[in-house]
Amino acid sequence: MERAVLLIQCPDRKGIVARLTGFLFENDANIVGSSQHTTHPEGGRFFMRLEFDFDPNTLSKDSLQRRLDRLAQSLHAQWEIHYASTVMRMGIAVSLHDHCLVDILYRVSSGELKAQVPLIVSNHDKVRKVAEDYGIPFYHLPIVKDKKAEQEKALLKLVRNTTDFLVLARYMQILSEHFLNEYGKDIINIHHSFLPSFKGANPYQQAYDRGVKLIGATAHFATVELDEGPIIEQVVDRVSHRDSVERIKQKSKTLEQIALARAIQAYLEHRIIRYENKTIVFD
Amino acid sequence: MERAVLLIQCPDRKGIVARLTGFLFENDANIVGSSQHTTHPEGGRFFMRLEFDFDPNTLSKDSLQRRLDRLAQSLHAQWEIHYASTVMRMGIAVSLHDHCLVDILYRVSSGELKAQVPLIVSNHDKVRKVAEDYGIPFYHLPIVKDKKAEQEKALLKLVRNTTDFLVLARYMQILSEHFLNEYGKDIINIHHSFLPSFKGANPYQQAYDRGVKLIGATAHFATVELDEGPIIEQVVDRVSHRDSVERIKQKSKTLEQIALARAIQAYLEHRIIRYENKTIVFD
Amino acid sequence: MERAVLLIQCPDRKGIVARLTGFLFENDANIVGSSQHTTHPEGGRFFMRLEFDFDPNTLSKDSLQRRLDRLAQSLHAQWEIHYASTVMRMGIAVSLHDHCLVDILYRVSSGELKAQVPLIVSNHDKVRKVAEDYGIPFYHLPIVKDKKAEQEKALLKLVRNTTDFLVLARYMQILSEHFLNEYGKDIINIHHSFLPSFKGANPYQQAYDRGVKLIGATAHFATVELDEGPIIEQVVDRVSHRDSVERIKQKSKTLEQIALARAIQAYLEHRIIRYENKTIVFD
Amino acid sequence: MERAVLLIQCPDRKGIVARLTGFLFENDANIVGSSQHTTHPEGGRFFMRLEFDFDPNTLSKDSLQRRLDRLAQSLHAQWEIHYASTVMRMGIAVSLHDHCLVDILYRVSSGELKAQVPLIVSNHDKVRKVAEDYGIPFYHLPIVKDKKAEQEKALLKLVRNTTDFLVLARYMQILSEHFLNEYGKDIINIHHSFLPSFKGANPYQQAYDRGVKLIGATAHFATVELDEGPIIEQVVDRVSHRDSVERIKQKSKTLEQIALARAIQAYLEHRIIRYENKTIVFD
Repeated sequence: MERAVLLIQCPDRKGIVARLTGFLFENDANIVGSSQHTTHPEGGRFFMRLEFDFDPNTLSKDSLQRRLDRLAQSLHAQWEIHYASTVMRMGIAVSLHDHCLVDILYRVSSGELKAQVPLIVSNHDKVRKVAEDYGIPFYHLPIVKDKKAEQEKALLKLVRNTTDFLVLARYMQILSEHFLNEYGKDIINIHHSFLPSFKGANPYQQAYDRGVKLIGATAHFATVELDEGPIIEQVVDRVSHRDSVERIKQKSKTLEQIALARAIQAYLEHRIIRYENKTIVFD
Repeated sequence: MERAVLLIQCPDRKGIVARLTGFLFENDANIVGSSQHTTHPEGGRFFMRLEFDFDPNTLSKDSLQRRLDRLAQSLHAQWEIHYASTVMRMGIAVSLHDHCLVDILYRVSSGELKAQVPLIVSNHDKVRKVAEDYGIPFYHLPIVKDKKAEQEKALLKLVRNTTDFLVLARYMQILSEHFLNEYGKDIINIHHSFLPSFKGANPYQQAYDRGVKLIGATAHFATVELDEGPIIEQVVDRVSHRDSVERIKQKSKTLEQIALARAIQAYLEHRIIRYENKTIVFD
Repeated sequence: MERAVLLIQCPDRKGIVARLTGFLFENDANIVGSSQHTTHPEGGRFFMRLEFDFDPNTLSKDSLQRRLDRLAQSLHAQWEIHYASTVMRMGIAVSLHDHCLVDILYRVSSGELKAQVPLIVSNHDKVRKVAEDYGIPFYHLPIVKDKKAEQEKALLKLVRNTTDFLVLARYMQILSEHFLNEYGKDIINIHHSFLPSFKGANPYQQAYDRGVKLIGATAHFATVELDEGPIIEQVVDRVSHRDSVERIKQKSKTLEQIALARAIQAYLEHRIIRYENKTIVFD
Repeated sequence: MERAVLLIQCPDRKGIVARLTGFLFENDANIVGSSQHTTHPEGGRFFMRLEFDFDPNTLSKDSLQRRLDRLAQSLHAQWEIHYASTVMRMGIAVSLHDHCLVDILYRVSSGELKAQVPLIVSNHDKVRKVAEDYGIPFYHLPIVKDKKAEQEKALLKLVRNTTDFLVLARYMQILSEHFLNEYGKDIINIHHSFLPSFKGANPYQQAYDRGVKLIGATAHFATVELDEGPIIEQVVDRVSHRDSVERIKQKSKTLEQIALARAIQAYLEHRIIRYENKTIVFD
């Protein structure tokens, strides 16, 4: 038996759930989990996640996907299917702050995050030891003045065919629209503030200066608009007048670890559907 | 058109979702929301909430329910159906602490909690004014020594036919097994601690004495085992050495209001399924 | 015996705590609580809250204040003193949304918030009944086109001498700089978002549109810069793709009640010191 | 200049703060932070944390401590003093679950936790690699049937003179009363539940079985009564019917990391005072 997850979205109309679940039943699949969301009752958009077991000996993945494609076309649906036997390949980019990197690698190694990490890239050489401790290939791609495009080109070459998605685990470089288009797969970023508060540089200092009583971290999909992509997860912690910028930074680092780990886990479990500039994150 | 919610549970087996959603499609109903849970893949128990619109002119409620009953029997399923046009009747019992009562009544009057409140009963006369301010019939059923059974009998007579469920909004009396059986409908209680910590009397003092750093409140279904019923909602707040028993009590009261309001809302929206000593609370 | 709270701030220098506590000891006062904060070790600013008992028969309030004034002058300090026997007079302004109002009035009536409420003002007549249920004078000051200045003048006349501070419990009118200067006392506002996110109008819709995963509420001092005053308290709650604007609004209302109640309680207990655009809120 | 922290507790009486701060002023020390707590106004117990700078060239540590001792005796006070120049030596004991260990080691190496780690001990050999990656001596002390006393003896020998306190970072062995007495210094334990709920073995399963909606972790001082020591920090996270025991375990692990890291940080900053079976944890 093979476990699969189908993510599908389309214009809402009567009978969709029956057709999708009927389709799986007819193909002898056993639904082990389903979640559904409709933006609003009349004329809304329909989203569904279906997790099911099927026997690839009686129904090949190819056949399944061809049949799904026919069904999806009749529903004007976008869809993607993932198989539990295929472990996602997660590329990680990082700069100097390695707290998220260390946390992710530990969660991967302990089996909590079910992903492969084919490579770690950084514009600094600092995290090489961490990568090596975990036996993961490390690539140092420094940013040289006026040669940022070359660096991005090298990055693209490294990750294009080796990764299914990228995680920017505090990678303090803005990726160009060109890179995003060429890579063409999902990129998850962690921003060290409670977006949309404190976009841009040094949100720790911004939070301190504004005197907020809660700080946060936001995991989101990277898009061409900096810090404006679809939000996946946000977490907060209390701060007070006693918290210096340094202490805010320490507290925030833990928040960044948590928000990013949760976002990656939801992604690896195929619980996220992107829609406009938002996410559906099924429990 | 009529909006309905079907809550159903049965032994898991292949094709259930397809059968349920197919059934609704065949009966020309339009699913506007669905949530499903299975305890575990093989031999587990299946739970589903289906929210749908149907036209009672072409399919009467009676017909719908007869057909559902046939389907349910073939699945060995337990089920209940609720119609949006039928507003639930919520009886409220309270003793001296009226913070939950006031909060519930406000939420009902503002339309947030879509329920009727046919009556408020209390073993004290203190909350009569609150009831009257909201124009709700109030019954004072004092506890007289050695006559507790009579008081329960009077309570039962008041609520048996006038209410669909009871809320114990800090009703500091233990209801007998006899009462629970005779009433036979759901009773939601709020306990002023983070269960299973600090069961029984004076959990504020217990929390203070133990020196916990977080306090909580728990909304749960009342059962014959005191403070042991299925938990619906729990919330917490931080406390420190600075918090006296009195301050813990104040903080807890806000938690009690929140936990109880959320539990009632989930109940009124038919998002709760009871199973063994637990609850499934769909989002 | 009389209980008093001294709030004091001045440039930091060696020996301040000793001088302040020595002063109280010499005047036969008994310190029952003290909290202190210094912004940074060298050349920072010093803040202290001292709660103490003294005998007004041996040391009159006048004498105490004269002596304090001399001490404060030598420290270039700003200070204020409050006596537990003097109950603060809290004016409340509200528009159509009365959830914060009812929550505050309940907390006052139950003794949790130790304040008097001499009056409630509103630009609408809707909350009159709530005010009357609690026996509090209500003033309806409607906003008439082109006559906003007159309305503010009437408001000022009502609150200037009758209140020690104002609470804007969802008062959806911007108070002019003129009003703020003329009133000259503290004004606590509740903003229905997690500031600095979603300033201005309809933050519920803004939060929905941005697809955030947490929403918040912010209690802050009102200043001439809209939504930019010193933050006192912030609280958050989780939201998901399932939360409509309406549901966000409901969740937010509870957050607004909590944040505002906590801010008022801190204010009434004289635990807040304003400094630049921030607050020190002692536990 | 040397930075010091004085922690002191004694029966409350008038003038203590003045005496303590006066004492520091007379000895030319500069207070940079102070926090105080009194359990209750009349006949309560007094606790204070004083952080100050002094010049060891004009006042030696020996002299300071002798003078403090005289003062403390006159107040019937218990006290301890810590110097910022003396880095605390933290021994770590761990069994098979290494999530807290890796988190602590990362926080130490990044400078967030200002401690030395002279050694790591374990009843299993599994975490040897982690210790070696961080260059920390590792001792494998297996538990042999009927020879637990010998193992404890070996442990005691290892940590008695090399550590200032011990952290049980998921060390799944009960330390005997004999060990606790012989070691005589503080031991911080992390329990994987929200105490006092789910004491003892397998709290993950207990939480799952009870159907709680929040799970927690508790950092506390180890005492002879298992899971009954003074609580330092507690954190919680939401769970639902969707969370299997395995998922509860994963969520809990993150909570355990956070609670333990916060407790260690508070301890290293000398912000904790133990009293009866509770802790004062100053912010």
